[in-house]
Amino acid sequence: MDVLESLALEGTSKIVLLVLDGLGDLPHPAHRGQTPLEAATTPNLDAIARESALGRLTPVAPGITPGSGPGHLGLFGYDPLTHLVGRGVLEALGAGIDLRHGDVAARANFCTLDATGIVTDRRAGRIPTETCVRLVEQLRKELRQVDDVEIVLQAGKGHRFVAVLRGAGLGGSVSDADPHREGKPVPVARPLEAGEANEKTARVVNAFVTRATQVLEREHPANGVLVRGLSERPRFPGYRERFKLRAAAIAAYPMYRGVASLAGMDLFVPAGEGAAEAFALAAREWASHDYLFLHVKGTDMAGEDGDFDAKVGVIQAVDAALPQLMALKPDVLCITGDHSTPVPMRGHSWHPVPVLVRSAVCFADAHPRFHEKTCRAGSLGDLASKDLVAVLLAHAGRLDKYGA
Amino acid sequence: MDVLESLALEGTSKIVLLVLDGLGDLPHPAHRGQTPLEAATTPNLDAIARESALGRLTPVAPGITPGSGPGHLGLFGYDPLTHLVGRGVLEALGAGIDLRHGDVAARANFCTLDATGIVTDRRAGRIPTETCVRLVEQLRKELRQVDDVEIVLQAGKGHRFVAVLRGAGLGGSVSDADPHREGKPVPVARPLEAGEANEKTARVVNAFVTRATQVLEREHPANGVLVRGLSERPRFPGYRERFKLRAAAIAAYPMYRGVASLAGMDLFVPAGEGAAEAFALAAREWASHDYLFLHVKGTDMAGEDGDFDAKVGVIQAVDAALPQLMALKPDVLCITGDHSTPVPMRGHSWHPVPVLVRSAVCFADAHPRFHEKTCRAGSLGDLASKDLVAVLLAHAGRLDKYGA
Repeated sequence: MDVLESLALEGTSKIVLLVLDGLGDLPHPAHRGQTPLEAATTPNLDAIARESALGRLTPVAPGITPGSGPGHLGLFGYDPLTHLVGRGVLEALGAGIDLRHGDVAARANFCTLDATGIVTDRRAGRIPTETCVRLVEQLRKELRQVDDVEIVLQAGKGHRFVAVLRGAGLGGSVSDADPHREGKPVPVARPLEAGEANEKTARVVNAFVTRATQVLEREHPANGVLVRGLSERPRFPGYRERFKLRAAAIAAYPMYRGVASLAGMDLFVPAGEGAAEAFALAAREWASHDYLFLHVKGTDMAGEDGDFDAKVGVIQAVDAALPQLMALKPDVLCITGDHSTPVPMRGHSWHPVPVLVRSAVCFADAHPRFHEKTCRAGSLGDLASKDLVAVLLAHAGRLDKYGA
Repeated sequence: MDVLESLALEGTSKIVLLVLDGLGDLPHPAHRGQTPLEAATTPNLDAIARESALGRLTPVAPGITPGSGPGHLGLFGYDPLTHLVGRGVLEALGAGIDLRHGDVAARANFCTLDATGIVTDRRAGRIPTETCVRLVEQLRKELRQVDDVEIVLQAGKGHRFVAVLRGAGLGGSVSDADPHREGKPVPVARPLEAGEANEKTARVVNAFVTRATQVLEREHPANGVLVRGLSERPRFPGYRERFKLRAAAIAAYPMYRGVASLAGMDLFVPAGEGAAEAFALAAREWASHDYLFLHVKGTDMAGEDGDFDAKVGVIQAVDAALPQLMALKPDVLCITGDHSTPVPMRGHSWHPVPVLVRSAVCFADAHPRFHEKTCRAGSLGDLASKDLVAVLLAHAGRLDKYGA
């Protein structure tokens, strides 16, 4: 990676990375053995495909199914096996919390405690989200701070919420204040590595759990809290520093803006979830950025729902909006996914993801379609996701020669 | 690899790895440019191929021709470049010696010494195997032990035998008691790394060489012994520990059971060398195992003999027996080789090996045949052998998602 950074050149070319979340799929037996991308009617994508180099991406490693965090970190050029993002940090990013350097984030639950402090239900009877919102509001009022550390809380779904500790000198290597099963008391959080920073975090977490339990004393069934997945916002070198790129992330969902924020991208919220809204925002931010990451969530959601037709529909909607994007004349256009979410599996998978790169200097494969089967024979070959950024920089004329 | 292990899930799914040793081959000019796998009539394999994902395995690294040890270690998910198995250990495993933790194994020869102790023939005139068996028996009787170390001997072919030192506190990093050329005396074995364990091994080896020479004093031409390739049985974490799999190895030849034993597999000897006997034993061990490694040697032997028709014949015999295996309904079936043994080369080679994976969630390529040429365009792509196990675990639903 150091080599790549040492070769990065300033430039005026523009790169667009369009991520259709969970794009990759499997041949569907009820749809003539076609994948959604294959079955979709995509005249605009077809025209682009003819002029593009096709290939496939392996998100993390063969056989490994990535979550959204590792999936996107790979696409951004951060090896997800060495660039670790804690569970709490991912949850906070997904909740739209603007994490700052030094913040420590955690996943938290409401739970039920008996009179002796034993956890009798780790999910507090799965209280409705409205109750969670009310209780988090109550905690916010009475628990704004522990010592000199600010406590930032955000309600999630059902019994879940996110807690962020913000203050000087906090460490992220602290054990869970969560017994992980019923019938035991809430354990005391302890530093997992030596150091004053982790000790301070442990103290704050334990004080938070104690005081929250006092605040919730008269509630039922949510009369306690559990805290787990404590982790520090990681410090990754950003796109400007690494690649001399002014990068923008345009994504309707906070998780994807959050991961992009770890790469130092500027964050933008489109007016809607569709590609058209993302492309409109890209037009607005075009002049001020060299690299635009555009995220479309619908493909992944349709895959998770096992809804073939819905996935086809999202792809066709993206296709219909594509002329808007092409009108901006990106020097390099890349269309791919962060992982596969095959309709028959109703979830993320490890299968390689189709990828397309179009530029004036791509090896145009002249394939009339872009889908899993044509990509297998494409001139880009099979790449690790983490290597994609180098390929995009190269196509953009933004990488110097290596050696003389 | 730690990541893979951290993701492994318990499960009830069954994985079969069917290894046709030396399966990969080259187009044969005398057979219409076909490979043996291509030329064979394989109706059962063809039916499986249609429902499978195809691809190719690189055993160690591009251009590297593996021996049987590294070839199989790769297939089992142990990087052969970092999981080293000494020559002596491989020889002992191949001889069917049940190596235990702490054992040190060596390759040994009978040789001819002149009156001054100079080695005049490193192979003792290539004595017949019967002589070797008789002399090893004699050494066994008179050299059962050196100090507190048990000496386990096993005759090989011609002048070759295997020596295993079994006892507490032995090290495997010791130089050869072998001048590696004629005209020199047998050198004293010395520790290659500091430590009492290696010193002890060196003492035992030197005592063994001295006493064996006394025992053989009146023999001719085999009146001395040479010892080389001293190595300790390595300690690799096993399949149960790494992948939560109860693994069985079914192989007629001791070498393959031996390598499987390094991965902690249970070992089984089929009633014969054919696929039918291996499949029958698989049926018997089905309930008690989650992963079954089945080894067929004939393809490699035919390749080594340069016998195209024999290789075709072995493949067809495997094909004929396949319904027996399919009747067990493995959740994941993988058919491949540990390396190529091309008929025109009469030996192992580095060429990528065809691989097929069939499961309910494989990307079925709908190729009507399984051979070197169709595998090149398969959806599994080109994988390193060491990554195969992750792909098999993924298809078996035995890997958790990486990150959130």
